[in-house]
Amino acid sequence: MNLEQAKAQLIALQAKMSAYHHAMGLLSYDGATTAPKATAANRGQTLSVLSEESYKLSTGKDTVELLEYLDAHKDELNAREARMVEILIKDIRQMQKVPMEEYVAYQTLLVEADDVWHTAKETSNFALFEPYLEKIFATTKKFAGYFAPDKDPYDFWLGEFEDGLTRESCDQFFATLRSRIVPLLKKVSEKEQVSDKCLWGHFPIDKQDELSKYLMELMGLDLTHVGLSTTEHPFTTSLGSHLDTRITTHYMEDNFASSMFSVVHEGGHALYDTGSDDDLCYTVLDGGVSMGIHESQSRFYENLIGRSLPFIRLIFPKLQELFPQQLEGYTAEDVFRAVNKAEPSLIRVEADEVTYCLHVMVRYELEKRVMAGEITVHDLPAEWNKLYKEYLGLDVPDDKHGVLQDSHWSGGAIGYFPSYALGSAYGAQLIEKMKETVDVDACIEKGDFAPINAWNREHIWHYGCLLKPQVLLEKALGAKFDPLVYCTYLENKCKAVYGLE
Amino acid sequence: MNLEQAKAQLIALQAKMSAYHHAMGLLSYDGATTAPKATAANRGQTLSVLSEESYKLSTGKDTVELLEYLDAHKDELNAREARMVEILIKDIRQMQKVPMEEYVAYQTLLVEADDVWHTAKETSNFALFEPYLEKIFATTKKFAGYFAPDKDPYDFWLGEFEDGLTRESCDQFFATLRSRIVPLLKKVSEKEQVSDKCLWGHFPIDKQDELSKYLMELMGLDLTHVGLSTTEHPFTTSLGSHLDTRITTHYMEDNFASSMFSVVHEGGHALYDTGSDDDLCYTVLDGGVSMGIHESQSRFYENLIGRSLPFIRLIFPKLQELFPQQLEGYTAEDVFRAVNKAEPSLIRVEADEVTYCLHVMVRYELEKRVMAGEITVHDLPAEWNKLYKEYLGLDVPDDKHGVLQDSHWSGGAIGYFPSYALGSAYGAQLIEKMKETVDVDACIEKGDFAPINAWNREHIWHYGCLLKPQVLLEKALGAKFDPLVYCTYLENKCKAVYGLE
Repeated sequence: MNLEQAKAQLIALQAKMSAYHHAMGLLSYDGATTAPKATAANRGQTLSVLSEESYKLSTGKDTVELLEYLDAHKDELNAREARMVEILIKDIRQMQKVPMEEYVAYQTLLVEADDVWHTAKETSNFALFEPYLEKIFATTKKFAGYFAPDKDPYDFWLGEFEDGLTRESCDQFFATLRSRIVPLLKKVSEKEQVSDKCLWGHFPIDKQDELSKYLMELMGLDLTHVGLSTTEHPFTTSLGSHLDTRITTHYMEDNFASSMFSVVHEGGHALYDTGSDDDLCYTVLDGGVSMGIHESQSRFYENLIGRSLPFIRLIFPKLQELFPQQLEGYTAEDVFRAVNKAEPSLIRVEADEVTYCLHVMVRYELEKRVMAGEITVHDLPAEWNKLYKEYLGLDVPDDKHGVLQDSHWSGGAIGYFPSYALGSAYGAQLIEKMKETVDVDACIEKGDFAPINAWNREHIWHYGCLLKPQVLLEKALGAKFDPLVYCTYLENKCKAVYGLE
Repeated sequence: MNLEQAKAQLIALQAKMSAYHHAMGLLSYDGATTAPKATAANRGQTLSVLSEESYKLSTGKDTVELLEYLDAHKDELNAREARMVEILIKDIRQMQKVPMEEYVAYQTLLVEADDVWHTAKETSNFALFEPYLEKIFATTKKFAGYFAPDKDPYDFWLGEFEDGLTRESCDQFFATLRSRIVPLLKKVSEKEQVSDKCLWGHFPIDKQDELSKYLMELMGLDLTHVGLSTTEHPFTTSLGSHLDTRITTHYMEDNFASSMFSVVHEGGHALYDTGSDDDLCYTVLDGGVSMGIHESQSRFYENLIGRSLPFIRLIFPKLQELFPQQLEGYTAEDVFRAVNKAEPSLIRVEADEVTYCLHVMVRYELEKRVMAGEITVHDLPAEWNKLYKEYLGLDVPDDKHGVLQDSHWSGGAIGYFPSYALGSAYGAQLIEKMKETVDVDACIEKGDFAPINAWNREHIWHYGCLLKPQVLLEKALGAKFDPLVYCTYLENKCKAVYGLE
């Protein structure tokens, strides 16, 4: 094998891996969007075969020899090739540590767990989901032991979702947020509550669907490469490469804002994914680099843009056109206040910006305790309800509105939730930096997202996974990450909405 | 290797093949139903990798050795195992004759061709599709040369879709039909034409969708295993196994009968597929055995049941409930006559039963001539229009309503069309046989499809691919196939609708 051959094989290997990811991703997507109800076992059968093939491909002798050869010649690789080898070696060294049967069994478990979670949520029946969730936590812990035997298992998984993140840094981050959010929420509660009546009524699905398409186009998504479907829980996924990206939403007939912000949130993910340089397609460098950076983009469009007054003013005529009776007598300013109403609530994805991170902290605390063995999966509903009382002052009426609300655990994403809070905070600091060179508010008012997207593309999207998350972030910010910027942003938002001093 | 090991490997091999078919089938299904417009190249990339893997699996040394071993021990296999080996060996011996690059390139071509066909049809632009269709015909011819160098290429493909079918037997079959259909159509044209006004109007998609679900449940489909989507051209596909089967339809807002009969037609395919014994899942014996038998089931439910007076009487109250204004003043008998109006028309899938086979003959003639080199793909639009004038007396206004109307050619299904006519004729003879033991009309009137489905399950469905098509058919019929039964059926139908003597 010479270097040129090895480089060609490196590309071919990644194309093959992308194909398996495409197939497996599409199976999951189909399960969440279109597949008939009783087909999970059938999908599980196929996924177990494909994940076995994919495992063999990744850990096979040819692959390992190729990567070791390239690693030994890393000085002769360009930056992209070197990073590909680095990522692949890390993934493969991890995968090699998991016995194939366990890897395949886990993939199959996740398909079943997702299916059961849907039914459990629908019927608010945690007992149904409990044995699956127990296995997921147990496997997560076991795999962490394989991957990084010297590390605390939860630290390991936090670091997988956001490079360098640990319980310690996470605790510190959340403590900072809490120290500013709790008093802020108290001040807000002393003011007269704003009304969100304008968001409620009857909003036909076909009109909401029209709104989704309008928003997607407005924010600069290319609808010939980005599709929209409906699912129980909104998400974004790229299939094969960023050239085929799907977002999903969940329509509520009695409230248009819920889906509206899901679309803008998932649209942010899709902008990031589809913003990778096109020649990164079918390589491991394609798409977003970490969940924290990903959420910085989704929550950027959802909140920093989507919940701003200029944005609500921009889209208000469209809202009036789609919902003329429902919005009669209301102004853009009414909608702005309504979508920024800060108030403890039960459902994370519908939470306002101020209370949002408290929802995340509940999940983080519970994951931390289960992973440490301080509580069991069986305890989760009761512990969940206790923390909602403690952090948000609310009584949880049932598990559907409590511990069963999110799809993450059924998908095995233990350690993911802090990314939402981190991403929100990254985003707040990113927009400050962007404002040094882009008149963001003026762009939004004109409905011209090109300069905003161009900034994000230049500083974040186009790299794909070329730069490590923390390097990328600090390069874009031109500074260290500082969560206080986010706290100040939230305070300013409350000033505008509630007239706080 | 001992026999028990080999038998276990036989099952494992088929499970692996099923997984690849699931993935590749889902990619195509996604492309036809949900994928954003500009994603065909991305799917093609993945399909090319997966078809290469699948090719390697099928033709690899291990597989060939396994099957040769089992073939040498065929006396020790049970009937199912023996048939599995027979089918696999036939497929693999064929595949081995195609160079892998050509096999993969053809899979990729089909993805692109399907994409281009959609655009070409939409814009009635045959020139766009022509180069793809040329390559498809050329490859079809070339592959036939690889598979069966001694056979005429079109004979080869006819036989692939329906065991034993050749140009000679096909010519004879169509000549028989023509000798009875052409005079029948003449007699009908001398009678006063029936009105189909009741089928036309404004029929909202959501109501039609409700009708689809109602029909699917009525005919006995299990909606937890059979899904419904919309596509340009209706079809049925099973993904991974018959446990996950999808049908599609195409809604026309100004006519409810078009989608209604698509759903019942595709529903018939789905009943057949999902009727395989469950322990055939993930083997090559799962699902329907040939396209002719498949169409015998789809056209059975569409026409012999769906266009019968008892059926229309059964569903009429539901139609009135869904479309009260549109159907005001009409009776079930009006709808019965309307859906049986015999009249030359342009679109095959919307054709009445009497003219239907003439549409099929046009396609058969054209395929035959292109495959024989008598005409080129470039000639197809003009030749198509000429034959529509000759067989149906119609002027074709544009290629959208002409040569571009069907999806089969873009999918590489050259030699498929005769199955529709054969299946229609098989069905007519099957229902006669069924009526010896089942009071079919009484069952339909009561809306009790269980005895009808039970007969089909016992005589056709449950076998999957265990019996060869002609064996299966003659066993079910208890007689040789006789196309004259179908001709008589058509004549009787016209008597009922037009009062012919």
